[in-house]
Amino acid sequence: MTDILVSEVGPRDGLQSIDRVMPLEAKKRWIAAEAAAGVKEIEVGSFVPPKLLPQMADTAELVAFARGIEGLNVVALVPNAKGASRAAEAGVHAMSIPFSMSETHSIKNVRKDHPAMIAEIAAASAIAREHDIHFAVGLSTAFGCTMEGAVAEDQVVRLAEKAVEAGAEELSLSDTTGYADPAQVRRLTRKVRAAVGADRLTTLHLHNTRGLGLANVVAGLEEGITTFDASLGGLGGCPFAPGASGNLVTEDLVLMLNAMGLKTGIDLEKLLEVRRIVEEALPGEPLYGFTPDAGPMLDYKQRAAA
Amino acid sequence: MTDILVSEVGPRDGLQSIDRVMPLEAKKRWIAAEAAAGVKEIEVGSFVPPKLLPQMADTAELVAFARGIEGLNVVALVPNAKGASRAAEAGVHAMSIPFSMSETHSIKNVRKDHPAMIAEIAAASAIAREHDIHFAVGLSTAFGCTMEGAVAEDQVVRLAEKAVEAGAEELSLSDTTGYADPAQVRRLTRKVRAAVGADRLTTLHLHNTRGLGLANVVAGLEEGITTFDASLGGLGGCPFAPGASGNLVTEDLVLMLNAMGLKTGIDLEKLLEVRRIVEEALPGEPLYGFTPDAGPMLDYKQRAAA
Repeated sequence: MTDILVSEVGPRDGLQSIDRVMPLEAKKRWIAAEAAAGVKEIEVGSFVPPKLLPQMADTAELVAFARGIEGLNVVALVPNAKGASRAAEAGVHAMSIPFSMSETHSIKNVRKDHPAMIAEIAAASAIAREHDIHFAVGLSTAFGCTMEGAVAEDQVVRLAEKAVEAGAEELSLSDTTGYADPAQVRRLTRKVRAAVGADRLTTLHLHNTRGLGLANVVAGLEEGITTFDASLGGLGGCPFAPGASGNLVTEDLVLMLNAMGLKTGIDLEKLLEVRRIVEEALPGEPLYGFTPDAGPMLDYKQRAAA
Repeated sequence: MTDILVSEVGPRDGLQSIDRVMPLEAKKRWIAAEAAAGVKEIEVGSFVPPKLLPQMADTAELVAFARGIEGLNVVALVPNAKGASRAAEAGVHAMSIPFSMSETHSIKNVRKDHPAMIAEIAAASAIAREHDIHFAVGLSTAFGCTMEGAVAEDQVVRLAEKAVEAGAEELSLSDTTGYADPAQVRRLTRKVRAAVGADRLTTLHLHNTRGLGLANVVAGLEEGITTFDASLGGLGGCPFAPGASGNLVTEDLVLMLNAMGLKTGIDLEKLLEVRRIVEEALPGEPLYGFTPDAGPMLDYKQRAAA
């Protein structure tokens, strides 16, 4: 039994932000090694048109591969109903569709306003239901938008309700822009849960753009959040500058949770070794994280066993 | 009125970890600029023998200078009763003596076991009392030690009580080694406060060696801690490797607290400009922090005013 589910999104969120394409075999090694380290859920790719994101062109093959790993929950991102059909055909356990709380960002990113996105969510959820696939909606830019600035919390709550009406079995709050602060994480988690029920919102997707990633995790833990997305080496997200990673770093998240005595089922040493696979496949690509340099505390195992 | 006091320790904790000596005039510019940015407390130096730490040789002059800045609380570190006399003579508002919870570390660092340190604290506190100077004891290695590993929480509680008996008006829990995790911060804060009273423990001195610094701040805030030490650019502490800073970065701490709507009285833009003074005085010295690269959120002022 684990207390907290660490959901690895690097093969999707990380690799889609990089120009180079990681070879399929390297992706497989990465996924297999993380699963062997105890990671129980991996977002392996995205069913977007390969013309738009050639980095994700092999997602169906990865799903098939990952399905062969016992005990691993295989997730893929789908941008729309068409992607949902491809994901269902590939055989994912779960699919997740991003729904931007900032309408400006939504229009800019996927050329759909909010009503059009709700329609897309309804169509995609129907496909998921038909194939008995878990269907999640990621409420992106929930904590603010680089174009609009603040996104009204009432708007997030209202759109969360609409997403559930359109078929979302689960929601996540996504800090796409690295805008979240701990007080806001607590407040927004409570508000959305009050509207849609606590069991519908169990996941936070946090970034570390401003160094607040783990601080926001603590706020989420205080609210009873049980799933956190993270990316190995902090790959991807929206890095601004060297040293400023985008995504939450899986290694640092696991160090913190394990040191707190929360069970993740993940072996930190084995997880740190997975970095080599990514480094070899993407030479020169910056990987982030404090734990790889500093190492765990001397009494880490004692804490983790507590 | 401020909700949270950010106490700048860079001129002491930062500069003592660096081989080069920052010129007195640069230190003055740094202290004056931080005070002008709204920082209300600065640890300006340490009354250690200049032979041991030439970087701190001008501490008395800095105290005199800093005392001239209206509204600024001027703190100095003292290692022993002799240092306390020099600090009193120089005219500090407050002095702080480190007391290592790990006896191995204490013996290695200042060649004193716990009974000898308690005697030193009693002697130093008598000097402080005589001069009506606020007297604090920093419980260093409170969250673990690089030599001993885990430091028993009961031992920290017991030594905290002894420090109060010896004259400590205030205690701080100090994560000298970057070992603290958020669960431990909450637990140890509660235990020590239960033993000595909540009003005696209002300060945390946290490091960011493993990237958990701000996560630990959130844990401290949940427990009602109201003062956090930090160092501009994360200067000092015990950096392990490039990218892994030692001290908590003042700029990131202020960004987070202000964004949470907690009043620090500090102007983030002005604070970020202070980095230039340090960069010019210590060319090539690495400064850390996410905020300088990423900048505040677009709606930062809106949040900070909330």
